[in-house]
Amino acid sequence: MTQLKIGQVGLGRLGRIHAQNLSKYIMNAELFAVTSIVPEELDYAKNELGVKHCYTSYTEMINNDELDAVIIVSPSGFHTVQISQALKKGLHVFSEKPIGIDLTTINDLLSELDNHPNTVFQLGFMRRFDDSYLYAKEVIERGDLGEITSMRCYGIDPSEGLPSFINFAKNSASGGIFLDMSIHDIDLVRWFTESEFSTVYALGNSLAAPQLADYNELETGACLATLENGVIVYLLAGRNANHGYHVETEIIGTKGMIRIGNAPEKNLVTVYDDNGVIRPTSTHFPERFKIAFINELSTFVNSIINNEKPTITGNDGLKSTEAAIAMQESFEKNEVVKLAGARI
Amino acid sequence: MTQLKIGQVGLGRLGRIHAQNLSKYIMNAELFAVTSIVPEELDYAKNELGVKHCYTSYTEMINNDELDAVIIVSPSGFHTVQISQALKKGLHVFSEKPIGIDLTTINDLLSELDNHPNTVFQLGFMRRFDDSYLYAKEVIERGDLGEITSMRCYGIDPSEGLPSFINFAKNSASGGIFLDMSIHDIDLVRWFTESEFSTVYALGNSLAAPQLADYNELETGACLATLENGVIVYLLAGRNANHGYHVETEIIGTKGMIRIGNAPEKNLVTVYDDNGVIRPTSTHFPERFKIAFINELSTFVNSIINNEKPTITGNDGLKSTEAAIAMQESFEKNEVVKLAGARI
Amino acid sequence: MTQLKIGQVGLGRLGRIHAQNLSKYIMNAELFAVTSIVPEELDYAKNELGVKHCYTSYTEMINNDELDAVIIVSPSGFHTVQISQALKKGLHVFSEKPIGIDLTTINDLLSELDNHPNTVFQLGFMRRFDDSYLYAKEVIERGDLGEITSMRCYGIDPSEGLPSFINFAKNSASGGIFLDMSIHDIDLVRWFTESEFSTVYALGNSLAAPQLADYNELETGACLATLENGVIVYLLAGRNANHGYHVETEIIGTKGMIRIGNAPEKNLVTVYDDNGVIRPTSTHFPERFKIAFINELSTFVNSIINNEKPTITGNDGLKSTEAAIAMQESFEKNEVVKLAGARI
Amino acid sequence: MTQLKIGQVGLGRLGRIHAQNLSKYIMNAELFAVTSIVPEELDYAKNELGVKHCYTSYTEMINNDELDAVIIVSPSGFHTVQISQALKKGLHVFSEKPIGIDLTTINDLLSELDNHPNTVFQLGFMRRFDDSYLYAKEVIERGDLGEITSMRCYGIDPSEGLPSFINFAKNSASGGIFLDMSIHDIDLVRWFTESEFSTVYALGNSLAAPQLADYNELETGACLATLENGVIVYLLAGRNANHGYHVETEIIGTKGMIRIGNAPEKNLVTVYDDNGVIRPTSTHFPERFKIAFINELSTFVNSIINNEKPTITGNDGLKSTEAAIAMQESFEKNEVVKLAGARI
Repeated sequence: MTQLKIGQVGLGRLGRIHAQNLSKYIMNAELFAVTSIVPEELDYAKNELGVKHCYTSYTEMINNDELDAVIIVSPSGFHTVQISQALKKGLHVFSEKPIGIDLTTINDLLSELDNHPNTVFQLGFMRRFDDSYLYAKEVIERGDLGEITSMRCYGIDPSEGLPSFINFAKNSASGGIFLDMSIHDIDLVRWFTESEFSTVYALGNSLAAPQLADYNELETGACLATLENGVIVYLLAGRNANHGYHVETEIIGTKGMIRIGNAPEKNLVTVYDDNGVIRPTSTHFPERFKIAFINELSTFVNSIINNEKPTITGNDGLKSTEAAIAMQESFEKNEVVKLAGARI
Repeated sequence: MTQLKIGQVGLGRLGRIHAQNLSKYIMNAELFAVTSIVPEELDYAKNELGVKHCYTSYTEMINNDELDAVIIVSPSGFHTVQISQALKKGLHVFSEKPIGIDLTTINDLLSELDNHPNTVFQLGFMRRFDDSYLYAKEVIERGDLGEITSMRCYGIDPSEGLPSFINFAKNSASGGIFLDMSIHDIDLVRWFTESEFSTVYALGNSLAAPQLADYNELETGACLATLENGVIVYLLAGRNANHGYHVETEIIGTKGMIRIGNAPEKNLVTVYDDNGVIRPTSTHFPERFKIAFINELSTFVNSIINNEKPTITGNDGLKSTEAAIAMQESFEKNEVVKLAGARI
Repeated sequence: MTQLKIGQVGLGRLGRIHAQNLSKYIMNAELFAVTSIVPEELDYAKNELGVKHCYTSYTEMINNDELDAVIIVSPSGFHTVQISQALKKGLHVFSEKPIGIDLTTINDLLSELDNHPNTVFQLGFMRRFDDSYLYAKEVIERGDLGEITSMRCYGIDPSEGLPSFINFAKNSASGGIFLDMSIHDIDLVRWFTESEFSTVYALGNSLAAPQLADYNELETGACLATLENGVIVYLLAGRNANHGYHVETEIIGTKGMIRIGNAPEKNLVTVYDDNGVIRPTSTHFPERFKIAFINELSTFVNSIINNEKPTITGNDGLKSTEAAIAMQESFEKNEVVKLAGARI
Repeated sequence: MTQLKIGQVGLGRLGRIHAQNLSKYIMNAELFAVTSIVPEELDYAKNELGVKHCYTSYTEMINNDELDAVIIVSPSGFHTVQISQALKKGLHVFSEKPIGIDLTTINDLLSELDNHPNTVFQLGFMRRFDDSYLYAKEVIERGDLGEITSMRCYGIDPSEGLPSFINFAKNSASGGIFLDMSIHDIDLVRWFTESEFSTVYALGNSLAAPQLADYNELETGACLATLENGVIVYLLAGRNANHGYHVETEIIGTKGMIRIGNAPEKNLVTVYDDNGVIRPTSTHFPERFKIAFINELSTFVNSIINNEKPTITGNDGLKSTEAAIAMQESFEKNEVVKLAGARI
């Protein structure tokens, strides 16, 4: 069996998930090398996952000629340049979202990608690989819902993560709640509707964590948008869901409506006790998207082996970032923003 | 508008519900007289509900010649004789279940009822007037579920009532959990299947309230039964639902299954908090069957005014009591009991 | 028992509901007179409901000196003037929403109401009397959800009513989807948050019924708004819910979230068949708000008898209409609209 | 990394699931050999899964000295003897349920197992490895439900499989519905309560497939049982769930109740269309227990590698079979059966 040799940069929370999945569930690939500047993370990779090559420099790692591909889970600001470096070395690339944080650089990167037609490039929009989302996509493509008329997307992180985000925000810029969080929802909207964002109008507040205002961050971000095909979209991003990790997507069509994640049910259990009738909930993204994370890596590896084009392209990275940036701009200027790329 | 004059005996918990409903929601009837031996109850009737005639003797009340009908909400042991007395006075009768507590007396009463073909007699199986049960009945009669193959009936009282039941059990006999509680479920089974109980096998325990054993009572009673038409039925009665008042009925047919009260949802509210995703619950029977109680009285009154036969007859009282007594016998003897009336 | 004599104008769909409720469920009031220009409606009132006085002129009806109060269920355009006429006659007034269709007239009416401090005036925001909404209000006032940070309100009429609305729209102006439908949601937002609308930004489309564009109507209207206290609100109104009558309200607070009507469950039944596991749904507003309609009239009548102030005032009519008109204006101009009355 | 060499006998529906899981998801084991008498099955193993050694004789396969362990997915009648043969060869054994079909042979096998204390033996009760069941087990062990008072277990196969079962039943004996299906539920009851079955009383009918009576089979089997610790248990097995694969387990305790699989929800999707509000369902056991099947094999393999005792022992096989046989006997004799092994 073919065994791709993969190098990964970044071993934070999400980085570990990818590294473990690669080690435990992806039989035709090997986590061959990792890069991190955190000694404990390299120890973990070496001792727990048996990774052979541990680097503190990404450049050094991709100079290892045995590598077939890289997985980029570094901070967002490094994505564009690390993707570009990997392309130059002829490596296939899986990168976490966003593809980049400013549109000029991303546009340049897209040109570069065009010049590597045989290189597999995939962005980490894992929701597209989740069973529930795939089921919804199938329902829609079958025409069961008729024509889509409006959508609603919620992405609300669990309250238990709020203190650590506040801490993070003191020292670092997340890029704003729309780029940091809504980008997954933006991708879903584009995927389900096969249309692009046309106008956005965004609001925000931090009633649940007023100190965020000091760091130019929001606890809640909301956006009302139109797509080029006339569909109306509402997006809500938040950092304070007391009941767990609330990712919900609603698609209203002329013949019916569908919701994915109406409640973030953890499993098939219902508890009946003195609180009422309770569905326990998923408490964080690693739990909610556990299988999706495995599937996306498996798809990436198989695309390389079978020489297939991945379905998530650089353009998906550009368009989702463009919309997220427009939302942030709309919030800051408090006005409706028309997207540059929009054809209307 | 015709206004029937009604006399009611019994003003306990359920008695008050009937009395209030009659006063507030049944426009073509008047709560004209009440009987109780508890002074506070008579005060309540007089002052709060404006009842004109208050008695301490049922016999005296039914001698009031202005009366058109009686509502019997007295302790179970009095039902048969009070029904009989009312019939003799030519009064229409609404009686709470059970129609009686021994089969000989009930059989005699049925003969008496046969002799009063123009008297309206209705038993208090209020569940037949509940929107959810009526909807299920319609689904079944439409044939949506095909032929019924099995049923399951749960009737579990809320835990908050357990201490007061234990107190009650010290001094009084409830007739056993099957006659006290399962009788409603037995009636539903007969109503939905249009068949009669053939054999019963009952078990019980009091793990949740061991002291009940001292009073010959059960916290949980369970029964596996067959009907004459081959349908298999499981009944569970209990006194300790921590989440509220759990009345649930399941009907499995060859084409589908239906559940009424899968969860005893209080309303259309869902709460998402750190306990998970919660549906608040009905906490007691007056809440759960609020509208059904009104509808059953309204039906009784309209049957009298329009000279119609009620759909719940004396025979329903006999058959449900017969099955409940057989269950109690099965539990006590720890053997399968075949019903005398069963044709098999 | 006191029996108020009530005159009602309008016997259309909603008019009949009020008339029937008054006749059947409100014991301390009598539907004494009605006004309609449709002969069949007067026949119905006379023959089915036993109404004694039938008029074709509202003015004539309110000249009947036996009347205590009026119920106004006429077309929206008549509300203000009919309320005003009734006030002058010293009658208590229950009026359907909206209180009026232009702000100047409504303001004048409010001054008039101020001059009748002892007259009971109540607007038909029946949702405030629905068990589920009352439960939610209690949860919020108890502080269980913490401080409110955002809300979402859906009001989507069933598809089965769409053809008749299209027909109606050919000949009449509804005032626009926001004034026609969202006004109920606007009232709920104000009731739950105890704050006023500050800015609104509205969109609309008619993908599900393109012909509506010809009549200046929308099938879907959406609005993103801010309140004076910083809460973010999303409203969606529609005319094409295939699954029934979808009224849903979500309130997100710092400590939890609540949804009323996540699914418009018809009752406590769950059906398991080859379509999956199904909750049947409420199919129209008379079903969904059946009890609420009774409760609101009962409250109105009791307020008169007990000489109490109703909780829904003229100001609620003004503010809700003001917000709805602003939404319509925002949609038409395609820009964010700041409310005149807003203090910010 | 250690790679165990595993030989599997049986490549039917469930056999393929195990073979695929072993090939794709269990990194520290290799599907090294298979035995089947069906040529297509061997072709499949060779070509699709790359299995190196294909046999038509189990005896020949286990003579391959490179093998570490066997997986037995042959017809139930072969289990005991194949387990025994493997033990003699010093092989670790994973066997599908039941461990055997008569109690004497099983007892003999248990003695044999006692003589191989270092051999890993695991039975295929995959439900114990399902996330929802594991969650429920945790809830119970934490004491959240208090003491268990009663249980209910449903195992109903999808209607779509009924025709093929009828076909199968014409030619083969399934052992009866209790041994064929309820055995999984029996194991769950023993696992959750840590108690043994004491008495059983079973009923059955075939209203949904009357022809099954000709083959001595049942469409529906029902059993009311007691455990040695006093817990009351109701089991329902069926072959005709129109909505999919209905496996549901309910545990009632003194402090609360839990249900696993109240509805066999396929995913997190809810569809709102003209049928109502719908949760799509799992349609068969490979879908419902997909992850559990992987987890059980992974546990088996890890137990061998880490030299650990599996939690599902030969005794679990004996006790579950004993109870299932007693249920079948009770149904056939139509009487309550006391279990021989029961201490009461």
